[in-house]
Amino acid sequence: MITNANNRVIGLRAVQALLAKGSAGRTIRQLFFAERGAARELIDAAKRADISTCQVTTAALDELAGGGVHQGVVALVGDYAYVDMHALLEDQRQPLLLLVDGVTDPQNLGAMMRAALVLGATGIVLTKDRCAQINATVTRVACGATEYLPCARVTNLVRAIAELKEAEVWVAGTVESGGQHPADVDLRRSLAIVLGSEGRGMRPLVVKQCDFLLTIPALGEIAALNVGTATGVVLYEVSRQRRSPPGN
Amino acid sequence: MITNANNRVIGLRAVQALLAKGSAGRTIRQLFFAERGAARELIDAAKRADISTCQVTTAALDELAGGGVHQGVVALVGDYAYVDMHALLEDQRQPLLLLVDGVTDPQNLGAMMRAALVLGATGIVLTKDRCAQINATVTRVACGATEYLPCARVTNLVRAIAELKEAEVWVAGTVESGGQHPADVDLRRSLAIVLGSEGRGMRPLVVKQCDFLLTIPALGEIAALNVGTATGVVLYEVSRQRRSPPGN
Repeated sequence: MITNANNRVIGLRAVQALLAKGSAGRTIRQLFFAERGAARELIDAAKRADISTCQVTTAALDELAGGGVHQGVVALVGDYAYVDMHALLEDQRQPLLLLVDGVTDPQNLGAMMRAALVLGATGIVLTKDRCAQINATVTRVACGATEYLPCARVTNLVRAIAELKEAEVWVAGTVESGGQHPADVDLRRSLAIVLGSEGRGMRPLVVKQCDFLLTIPALGEIAALNVGTATGVVLYEVSRQRRSPPGN
Repeated sequence: MITNANNRVIGLRAVQALLAKGSAGRTIRQLFFAERGAARELIDAAKRADISTCQVTTAALDELAGGGVHQGVVALVGDYAYVDMHALLEDQRQPLLLLVDGVTDPQNLGAMMRAALVLGATGIVLTKDRCAQINATVTRVACGATEYLPCARVTNLVRAIAELKEAEVWVAGTVESGGQHPADVDLRRSLAIVLGSEGRGMRPLVVKQCDFLLTIPALGEIAALNVGTATGVVLYEVSRQRRSPPGN
């Protein structure tokens, strides 16, 4: 029945985002729900948009959700539409991109995308290999941020960084130690922030390609933040600096 | 065999933290592991500390971990030793506490504790009811921050806030909208930050008791950050302000 396990969106907030995007977003082929209750508004919105809805047993929904936490709703959707990286720079006076280097855990990618959207990132770049892709888990953990934040995929992140630099985007890496405090760097410019995986961090070749490196100081006995939280902290610092005009 | 499912610590980093604390922390009754490999250092450290270790099958470890992600190691431990709230203020020139109001998801509590420890919080306060308690999931997600960050439990958070205010601790609430930007408030003082659950936020009576309210501005289509990320952002802002002497 389902040809691709990633063509599902599960959880109330993720499905809500999907419906809010309407025809500007992913095609919704079918909305399954277990009970009206909490899903009532979603079901009504789906009907208004001429989307087929279908009540199923919780057991069937568990199956459709592939074991994920579905909160009573699962949507079957068309493929996620990745964009070209250069499209992320169009119509942006001041791009603020997130570059993901080797984050393989979909929970972490979802947390990063949620933080990215809330804190003002304008796009995200994944690698085609060695990186989680946008699937049902990512969409759910991101609370639907996947439907709003444009996402590009590249084969070679080092080359992508070179291209961004040519387009006058500054590239900031994040490292566990040895980088500058985010508040000590002027982040009020076109910017791409690279985040590596929790275990291994950014790859050395990627680190080398960055214009500068940032470190969130660790004050306790544990070395580092979760990559989703680190994303939030760095983007918060960018938004804080951008509140005040240059020179302040 | 196991009387209390919460008396387990699972995952490499959580068990590492446990062993690093040694006799200052929780009693370790037994360390189970599936294969030496990645656990070798932990096993050696346990043997040096006269802790009984035992190799078991992965299936047995899955069972011991109660379905959690154990990464090949599970420790059976004594009860988590909560402290009295007033003990959190002792020997602290400038306390920085986290007060948790109704966060029932152990994943979220674990993420909050990890962020809290890394970003310089000096203690955390939970409520006895309507709140996740420190269990195996919290300890694992917190990467062992539970073993370093002292934690108190109170029956009545409103009364606890009143007591903190009497002890000259300022109490900051966090709300989705209507609060001040964290950068616009002087956070360089003895401080307790209250975080509510993702769905419902802080309870109205708790909001009312706060000295001031903070809001991390949401710039995208999604309303709010995950509570773990929000914890990280607010604590980062505190640490940023505390880097510079008052008057700067």
